[in-house]
Amino acid sequence: MKLAFIGLGSMGSAMADSLLSAGHELVVYNRTAERAEHLRRRGARVARTANEASRDVEAVVTMLADDAAVESVTFGEDGIVAGLAPGAVHVSSSTISVALSERLAAAHESARQGYVAAPVFGRPDAAATKQLWVVAAGPREDIDRCLPLLEALGRGVSLLGDSARAANVAKLAGNFVIASMLEALGEAMALSRKAGVAPEAFVGVFSSLFSRSPIFERYAGLIAKEAFAPAGFKASLGRKDMGLVLAAGQALAVPMPLASLLHDNLLAAVARGDGDLDWSVIGRLAAERAGLPPKS
Amino acid sequence: MKLAFIGLGSMGSAMADSLLSAGHELVVYNRTAERAEHLRRRGARVARTANEASRDVEAVVTMLADDAAVESVTFGEDGIVAGLAPGAVHVSSSTISVALSERLAAAHESARQGYVAAPVFGRPDAAATKQLWVVAAGPREDIDRCLPLLEALGRGVSLLGDSARAANVAKLAGNFVIASMLEALGEAMALSRKAGVAPEAFVGVFSSLFSRSPIFERYAGLIAKEAFAPAGFKASLGRKDMGLVLAAGQALAVPMPLASLLHDNLLAAVARGDGDLDWSVIGRLAAERAGLPPKS
Amino acid sequence: MKLAFIGLGSMGSAMADSLLSAGHELVVYNRTAERAEHLRRRGARVARTANEASRDVEAVVTMLADDAAVESVTFGEDGIVAGLAPGAVHVSSSTISVALSERLAAAHESARQGYVAAPVFGRPDAAATKQLWVVAAGPREDIDRCLPLLEALGRGVSLLGDSARAANVAKLAGNFVIASMLEALGEAMALSRKAGVAPEAFVGVFSSLFSRSPIFERYAGLIAKEAFAPAGFKASLGRKDMGLVLAAGQALAVPMPLASLLHDNLLAAVARGDGDLDWSVIGRLAAERAGLPPKS
Amino acid sequence: MKLAFIGLGSMGSAMADSLLSAGHELVVYNRTAERAEHLRRRGARVARTANEASRDVEAVVTMLADDAAVESVTFGEDGIVAGLAPGAVHVSSSTISVALSERLAAAHESARQGYVAAPVFGRPDAAATKQLWVVAAGPREDIDRCLPLLEALGRGVSLLGDSARAANVAKLAGNFVIASMLEALGEAMALSRKAGVAPEAFVGVFSSLFSRSPIFERYAGLIAKEAFAPAGFKASLGRKDMGLVLAAGQALAVPMPLASLLHDNLLAAVARGDGDLDWSVIGRLAAERAGLPPKS
Repeated sequence: MKLAFIGLGSMGSAMADSLLSAGHELVVYNRTAERAEHLRRRGARVARTANEASRDVEAVVTMLADDAAVESVTFGEDGIVAGLAPGAVHVSSSTISVALSERLAAAHESARQGYVAAPVFGRPDAAATKQLWVVAAGPREDIDRCLPLLEALGRGVSLLGDSARAANVAKLAGNFVIASMLEALGEAMALSRKAGVAPEAFVGVFSSLFSRSPIFERYAGLIAKEAFAPAGFKASLGRKDMGLVLAAGQALAVPMPLASLLHDNLLAAVARGDGDLDWSVIGRLAAERAGLPPKS
Repeated sequence: MKLAFIGLGSMGSAMADSLLSAGHELVVYNRTAERAEHLRRRGARVARTANEASRDVEAVVTMLADDAAVESVTFGEDGIVAGLAPGAVHVSSSTISVALSERLAAAHESARQGYVAAPVFGRPDAAATKQLWVVAAGPREDIDRCLPLLEALGRGVSLLGDSARAANVAKLAGNFVIASMLEALGEAMALSRKAGVAPEAFVGVFSSLFSRSPIFERYAGLIAKEAFAPAGFKASLGRKDMGLVLAAGQALAVPMPLASLLHDNLLAAVARGDGDLDWSVIGRLAAERAGLPPKS
Repeated sequence: MKLAFIGLGSMGSAMADSLLSAGHELVVYNRTAERAEHLRRRGARVARTANEASRDVEAVVTMLADDAAVESVTFGEDGIVAGLAPGAVHVSSSTISVALSERLAAAHESARQGYVAAPVFGRPDAAATKQLWVVAAGPREDIDRCLPLLEALGRGVSLLGDSARAANVAKLAGNFVIASMLEALGEAMALSRKAGVAPEAFVGVFSSLFSRSPIFERYAGLIAKEAFAPAGFKASLGRKDMGLVLAAGQALAVPMPLASLLHDNLLAAVARGDGDLDWSVIGRLAAERAGLPPKS
Repeated sequence: MKLAFIGLGSMGSAMADSLLSAGHELVVYNRTAERAEHLRRRGARVARTANEASRDVEAVVTMLADDAAVESVTFGEDGIVAGLAPGAVHVSSSTISVALSERLAAAHESARQGYVAAPVFGRPDAAATKQLWVVAAGPREDIDRCLPLLEALGRGVSLLGDSARAANVAKLAGNFVIASMLEALGEAMALSRKAGVAPEAFVGVFSSLFSRSPIFERYAGLIAKEAFAPAGFKASLGRKDMGLVLAAGQALAVPMPLASLLHDNLLAAVARGDGDLDWSVIGRLAAERAGLPPKS
């Protein structure tokens, strides 16, 4: 397919790479152009604006940091809506608010363009090895047209129906479930340590029990070792995502006390200057509340 | 080995069965004697008191409902401490408080008897098919002596060192992590449903992500279907266990806000008359807080 | 003073009345003009737009439902910024977000206009009897100029310094402390009722203890009688205010777990259809979680 | 009346003093006898055991630190039940669990003795100046007989009916409401400080609003100044009391999420070594979670 890719951070670069590897023709755009260099060398064309990137393609994929970044490349005269041809599709892979996803759906529908929400689960290393999992939703015809590109991004795709925002909710819900696990592990290990059980022994028991859940084992290990740098996913981003979960809950009238607890703890991590550490650092907060010294 | 088994509820009966199948010689005791009948038919001797059961055996296993039940068979003239020979071992598999486990350790040490805490993970069906996971701790020589019996109970044993209470903490921590998952799933599905994502679709996404974690899939399915009866593990027992978690946290000075949240929600389930439903019913509470009607 | 008043809900009408009674000259504006009728009869001029109301006055007071309403009368060609003369002051009495207060401060400064945040504590009946308490902040010269009008609104004024947003934070903090009292009373009375203590007896004890705090006594009485309609302050507005508290906390990196708890409970009240009841209805939620039947 | 007083800590000594001043005849007992010296000089007789103190009196008042201390002076051959004449009354003023109060009621009823629960609100300085508030409950005839002594203890008495435990619940509920205020003030001031509002200014606003509530003003001042030593009421005791609140809630099936939050925060204070500071120190925890430096 003839595709555009906007947003070349560590996730976006690897995803764009996957699309090239799958044989798609690619034009890319990033606010700071240097990030596009290695893709240019692999054959991608580099555009100077999001609008320019969006012209003459069948679909444009966006992978950006937050709502503000997605808004800035979508709306306005330099944006995607102004550039995209009728019938072409905007595939939004960023973790954004449900409210913005609804606005994007409406804007593209007005412009007779397609819109698919397709956030992904996985970190940059998973993106690089095509191990992402894609959760996609949107009008059936838009999904159908984009399926080759969605399949090129990762190891599988879940489809969640006609309403694009469903995929955003699922992505936020997924991150929420993972964060819940972090808090549970943190409190459980603080208890275990104070009872004289080494964190490593604790991890051993749990790997036996919840066996073969790689996410679980990975995070249990990080919290046991207090290995929060470099971050796989920053606490500040986790805070942002839990904020989006709560915003969606508020808009839909869904009280979520566990999400509130996680947001408060991630916000505490940010407030004390740990926002750039891995979000599993909330496990360390649980230990501190218990008066445990940091592991050296 | 020559063994006694005390407490023939659905878990205990199946575990005693496994010991017989493994070739051990068994004397059993249960407060209501009828529960012993099928084991008697399989060759077990039936004792009239815990004291009588404990005489002339190398080890006695207890599997009872709560602290009070364990105390009643252990202390006093009809109890295990009075009956057990010096050097013989009490293997306590019940989910009990950390404080009681410490008292048991002290009492048996005074009587020159051995003591091993060996709680198990798994439900009655897992007990019946020898799929339990045993978490054991206690003095090395006691553990060594009991290893054949521990291995006969399930598919594996984790050893957690010299201090028996470590195994009790690990068991409570494990149930706490599972309960955290229930709350997380409940809130996440309430959000998804209100956003128009069917719970089944949600479960599909998550099975792809947290693939091959049977506990996760099982509970996600129960909450999605609101299939809380018959209970695999009752909300009232879950409430009790979270109470034990908080009691341990209090004794060791470990604040556990997520455990507090779970205890409050399980207590709400009990207060409204749902104590006999499966503890995943807290997922239903999350839906109700959001104003969602029950699934019919 | 020559004044404008925008927003003639039950609070605003009574406040405008107080200004007339204090001898100020008044022009008023409300989206639905009928609400202005009784003020017109008392001598106020009725404007057709916020812009028109703002011309030729020394200060314009706004008292509106939420951020969106304040934005709509402030910005744009029909708005206050476009209408107000340089040197004239916008006195914002609405309970709005800290972020919007900062935007208002910046916009008026750019237009060389004054800006004072002056939210009020008290309900419509307090407004009608000039018993409001005003919390004001802003540049000293703006405050000085507006003091006669601020004093005309209620029984006292607290000044919080140069930075207008301080007054908004104080207003939100005040509502937060009141909501905390509601939750505390609700849980305490649920416990008391289940222990056989009649809510009225409970209220009696507490009036003796926390004597002479009218807010406390009033709300304790409402929760004891479950007298939630008609609302003095709606649960939906309480939900909104706790949302503003959390938004301020998020922007300033202040984790507020009690505010999160209150927001979740008020959101639950809204989700189940009780948004129009008095916000003390969260006391009823506490009773329901305990399985208590409603008082008939 | 002929009275005994057991437990001569700072509260008990002052209360015993009040009884002497009111003209009652007094025998006293304290585990460490020196504490009785000043009362002996004022005319009190000093007993060597609780049993001895309880003989030949119309009523015995106990004021002790916790459940264990009350149990130790009440039961056993040296205890009150063994010493008290039929018809004489045990007036229990300690802050104890609802469960123990029920046990005391049953034990004294079996021994044909009276029992009144009469916990008090106020600190040692209030006890010394007869400013305590007494909350009493128990069988009408027992209350009637003890009224002169209850009135001698403080400035007023609230009666809560026939069931003694009602007074214990009311005492715990009262401390819970006060602790809720501490947490609310702590979070509100953390928010205010980060928004640039000095804590003192915040206190000023709130004193205007919640005027004339001395408890409120006192604690707002302590948190604003971070003046937590010497403690008026220790965080470790506050932790204990919130534990008793939760235990009562558990026994009666009353979920209390705000009490859980307070217990977790007071437990965190204890875990980090601040158990001997005033319990308003949880206001400091709120500031720390926000990354605020301590006030010097």
